[in-house]
Amino acid sequence: MIELRRNPLLSEWVIINDNRDVVHKTNNSKSIQTDNEQCVCPFCVGKEILTPKAILSLDKNGNMTNDIKKWDVRVIPNNKPILAIESNLNRRADGVYDKMNGAGAHEIIIETPDHNKKIQDFSITEISRIFDVLQSRINDLKNDSRFEYILAFKNHGLEAGETITHSHVQLVAMPIIPKVIKEEMNISKKYYEFKERCLFCDIIDQETAANLRVVSENADFTAFVPYASRFPFETWILPKEHSTDFCNISDKSKKDNLASILLSIMRRLYKVLDNPSYNVVMHLLPLKTPFLPYYHWHIEIIPKITKFTGFEFGTGMYVNPTIPEETAKFLREAE
Amino acid sequence: MIELRRNPLLSEWVIINDNRDVVHKTNNSKSIQTDNEQCVCPFCVGKEILTPKAILSLDKNGNMTNDIKKWDVRVIPNNKPILAIESNLNRRADGVYDKMNGAGAHEIIIETPDHNKKIQDFSITEISRIFDVLQSRINDLKNDSRFEYILAFKNHGLEAGETITHSHVQLVAMPIIPKVIKEEMNISKKYYEFKERCLFCDIIDQETAANLRVVSENADFTAFVPYASRFPFETWILPKEHSTDFCNISDKSKKDNLASILLSIMRRLYKVLDNPSYNVVMHLLPLKTPFLPYYHWHIEIIPKITKFTGFEFGTGMYVNPTIPEETAKFLREAE
Repeated sequence: MIELRRNPLLSEWVIINDNRDVVHKTNNSKSIQTDNEQCVCPFCVGKEILTPKAILSLDKNGNMTNDIKKWDVRVIPNNKPILAIESNLNRRADGVYDKMNGAGAHEIIIETPDHNKKIQDFSITEISRIFDVLQSRINDLKNDSRFEYILAFKNHGLEAGETITHSHVQLVAMPIIPKVIKEEMNISKKYYEFKERCLFCDIIDQETAANLRVVSENADFTAFVPYASRFPFETWILPKEHSTDFCNISDKSKKDNLASILLSIMRRLYKVLDNPSYNVVMHLLPLKTPFLPYYHWHIEIIPKITKFTGFEFGTGMYVNPTIPEETAKFLREAE
Repeated sequence: MIELRRNPLLSEWVIINDNRDVVHKTNNSKSIQTDNEQCVCPFCVGKEILTPKAILSLDKNGNMTNDIKKWDVRVIPNNKPILAIESNLNRRADGVYDKMNGAGAHEIIIETPDHNKKIQDFSITEISRIFDVLQSRINDLKNDSRFEYILAFKNHGLEAGETITHSHVQLVAMPIIPKVIKEEMNISKKYYEFKERCLFCDIIDQETAANLRVVSENADFTAFVPYASRFPFETWILPKEHSTDFCNISDKSKKDNLASILLSIMRRLYKVLDNPSYNVVMHLLPLKTPFLPYYHWHIEIIPKITKFTGFEFGTGMYVNPTIPEETAKFLREAE
């Protein structure tokens, strides 16, 4: 069963999906998992038979390949998808409640054939190629008019919900605009109406001028620890110039600069936090939204050091036990 | 430093507080922690010197006591509070950002002198007395006009962010109404304006009639797995009759019925999930809000089985790998 059900008290959609594994994590699950995977990692080269047929397969030179042994990046459908291709949404009432079918798509981008290679080991060219693949897959999924939004994210480490350690990115196409993106769009729209300026651009200006929380920057991108960081060492990457749509980046040098700053942040986090668990999420423009003067796509990197407690659940607020200016300094000096 | 900073993109307050511990959890931290605590648990009887002076201390008969050895429930200020007593809020701008002082209070209710006694081992009378203490502390903290809201919560187990294993409840008084409560109030208000009925009461009616997700009930309270459960085995407890303010429950039999249903749920979860980590949070009326025809205080119990992944962070949506009707059945049959 895959069903979207609305929590009526908070107007938020929850995905009820019993095809997904309930991951019971115990203290020793990590080592058990790794042992198992060494034998049968389905993402390793030579194990392609264990996964569905590739949607896209690129060789070392970035060319499409059908040679099952020669891939360097491989995109496959998730065989236990969060949302799956269904005929229709069938939005309907269930008494006082609301539900719809769990229509969507869930793809996995296997970033390397090498089981042990992690993002901090990648070259700029290799990361840049992942962005090429992301754009290509988003542009393809966009053609399905049922989809409203595509989320791109990465989980690394047990605390971040990683279930397969082989480096990969996930793409989920969904029939609704998720709550977080809706809120960001609503708030930045209100700000724009009031100030006639983009909130994101104002934030970038202030961060650059203050230079208290900036970790790294180059000609096209800036990376900083946000003013109200929810998590220790949380870092955001934003395009310096106003940019609504990630898929509009066609310039190779710009894409390389994005790869370069992401690599720089991931290496710093690896060094300072000693290989932390983390999530990387892209906040992208909804699929059917045209250019907006007030929305700015960006990347959020969230190391998983703290736990969610009753405080976070009861309030929706976060307690961050570190000072953003100090964590930024650690990261800045780590290069 | 304790500071409230507003995340401008989501209009949410974050507490920046470097007096709190950054809990680095490793695979073996649980056993290390337990070993240390056996020696020096500051919440154990005889170790009162390790904590601040009690705000309130009750003996076995529920009477106030000053005898340091005879307490059965003990309330102390947290010496590393999430929010602390400050002279004023001093709300101010920081360029494009907003901040204020982290004014508030943070108390700990030590529920038992016995280090190893957990909630499922309590009697109804003992849990009922904790509710007495909660009401008493909330009524006292209410007198400080700077406070807008009081959160009561409990963390059990490593995954739930527990740092001291000795059974305790936490109370945080805060100068703002937290995001989650604001959202619930806004949505249930809109529903009331539209339907002229309380959303919570409608939910209770539907759950009772459908009897698909109810786990337990008695004359005054019902407990069910919510329709759009965000987490496996999530369970809510609500008063059956419309009730805005938890502090208005004065009837002893009603308080005992609340204790009884909470105990029943905690015992079922303990049995079905084999001593899971969990959070319990109370959703209470803001302090300065009078009786509302549309808000219904309640308790949410959240076992910690699943992890937050990039999907949850990137969307604000939850993926629940279990079907609420099935988890309800497991819990119902566990008695």
